[in-house]
Amino acid sequence: MRAARYIGAGSIDVVEVDPTDPGPAEVQIEVAYTGICGTDLHILHGAMDHRVRAPQVIGHEMSGRVASLGADVTGWSVGQPVTVMPLRWCGRCPACRAGNQHICERLVFVGIDSPGAMQTRWTVSADLLVALPDALALDAAALVEPTAVAVHDVRRAGLAVGETAAVIGGGPIGVLIALVSRAAGADVTVFELDAHRRGVAERLGLRVVDPGAVDLAAFVDDWTRGAGAAVAFEVSGSGAGLSTAVATLAVRGRLVMVAIHNEPRPIDLFRFFWRELTMVGARVYERTDYDRAIRLIARGDLPVGELISDVVPLDRAGDAFRSLGAGGPVMKVLIDCAPGGGR
Amino acid sequence: MRAARYIGAGSIDVVEVDPTDPGPAEVQIEVAYTGICGTDLHILHGAMDHRVRAPQVIGHEMSGRVASLGADVTGWSVGQPVTVMPLRWCGRCPACRAGNQHICERLVFVGIDSPGAMQTRWTVSADLLVALPDALALDAAALVEPTAVAVHDVRRAGLAVGETAAVIGGGPIGVLIALVSRAAGADVTVFELDAHRRGVAERLGLRVVDPGAVDLAAFVDDWTRGAGAAVAFEVSGSGAGLSTAVATLAVRGRLVMVAIHNEPRPIDLFRFFWRELTMVGARVYERTDYDRAIRLIARGDLPVGELISDVVPLDRAGDAFRSLGAGGPVMKVLIDCAPGGGR
Repeated sequence: MRAARYIGAGSIDVVEVDPTDPGPAEVQIEVAYTGICGTDLHILHGAMDHRVRAPQVIGHEMSGRVASLGADVTGWSVGQPVTVMPLRWCGRCPACRAGNQHICERLVFVGIDSPGAMQTRWTVSADLLVALPDALALDAAALVEPTAVAVHDVRRAGLAVGETAAVIGGGPIGVLIALVSRAAGADVTVFELDAHRRGVAERLGLRVVDPGAVDLAAFVDDWTRGAGAAVAFEVSGSGAGLSTAVATLAVRGRLVMVAIHNEPRPIDLFRFFWRELTMVGARVYERTDYDRAIRLIARGDLPVGELISDVVPLDRAGDAFRSLGAGGPVMKVLIDCAPGGGR
Repeated sequence: MRAARYIGAGSIDVVEVDPTDPGPAEVQIEVAYTGICGTDLHILHGAMDHRVRAPQVIGHEMSGRVASLGADVTGWSVGQPVTVMPLRWCGRCPACRAGNQHICERLVFVGIDSPGAMQTRWTVSADLLVALPDALALDAAALVEPTAVAVHDVRRAGLAVGETAAVIGGGPIGVLIALVSRAAGADVTVFELDAHRRGVAERLGLRVVDPGAVDLAAFVDDWTRGAGAAVAFEVSGSGAGLSTAVATLAVRGRLVMVAIHNEPRPIDLFRFFWRELTMVGARVYERTDYDRAIRLIARGDLPVGELISDVVPLDRAGDAFRSLGAGGPVMKVLIDCAPGGGR
């Protein structure tokens, strides 16, 4: 079988490897699709070398079918469609004891801290498996993981039906947050500088604004009838995006910090005081977010398939990473992990 | 009667003026005590000249007795002990319509945006009056307003019984927050650089730490058994205090932004993401906070009298402002507004 590995120095190789037989409490999955995440690009660029031990198979957004079961595994059947919730927690740290296992102090993110899904067959602990409905297309199912991120973000916002929501940054996660917010009955605007990404969001029927081309204050005033947005999602990771998010919010508005800001950012704390704003951090997801993401995609509420810019055979994974890393007109790229690619 | 006025250029004068008879819907109060707030010092230093039109009587933390009623005022009786909730809202802006009148876009803060309580008799709109229990000493009652701030801050934190709460800054508001948090059943630590203020907090039985003298991380680890604090109140207004607050928090910890930070501050947004922290702004109070503050003081749960460093006759208000402005070993200073001062 084939596997795409991060080998350090900005490179991916694709090599022939032997599949790993599932041990006790493990399951081997025949991988259908693995999505390339922003985090995978960070890995490629060496930014996560403190966590990823090259050479390592990466990838954590995936779909597939159960291929074989470890000796004592029950509750799963060969051929059953599945995805993986790629978190392993210790169960003993203060965060775990408080019920926040997804922020475990010793969290293992599978596909980053341990081998990932960008291979023909992937053997994982059975307790990471999440069942998929038979009717759900496996390419769309590879977007369950990022959709669960969006569901978690919207849940952290406490977004209520009829509220206004500003999404700052219209990449895959931003657009998914916008779609989930819309499905929650919110009145959504996406703020995105990139014309291609604005086009994708517009085709999905979202209201989209180029923050570089409008008078933001006037737009928000008009959109929200002078109140400001009830919720802003900061997904851009930029200082300018953060400022836009804070400036956009209504009295008692909630800012959800989705993006990773690797350096301290100046923030207008007077406005937090004056308007009684709230900022909440949001990290990955909990099992309930996975379940909701699957339900929303399966019943057609989220046209996630529209986000898929390209599907690339596993043997060309390196090219896919290179073209994503170069930017350009792409949203989500899936790696087709079937033998020979393409099904 | 006498009145202490901000006359600009860092000065207070005390002059003889005629009392204002109460008009329709107004009440004249015989003022007992008026506290000097940090905001009053900002006014003295000219920082609020865009809102205060000198010469103006200032002061908004007060207690007194009803002296006379306007023509159509009912529900109040002469001699009844009262305080004032010094907020006037428009009732029509988006914040008011959403139920957040205390953050009204056109909020009038009485004693800042309109004449205040530092005078023998004060005539105000009757709907600002809040009744005091007969048994409540009027000097302690002058601390109802800052106590309502603290009650509001603790309510914004969602502080639950048994939780850990770090109070960054042990001035009057910080100590009141610590006392209200303790009354709410929290396990509280006050972080304060000033030795005098630490002494006051210690005499009130609070756990107090000098953040300049301990290994903060080790202290918090030991105090919270490795979890971090559930809640941090940023009351210092300093960048260092902000950093301490963020560093102190547990997974899903809540930071309440009480202090006014007049410039943008760098903040560790990665930690907000990584630990799913929350920051909430907290501004003044709502009527329910006033009612709770009065109940807590009246039943003896908050020994607010211990915060009163000095009581100064109205004719010496200028001296009181000067000594407070110079810093030194003081917490709360009250102005005795009775004719001749002292009762």
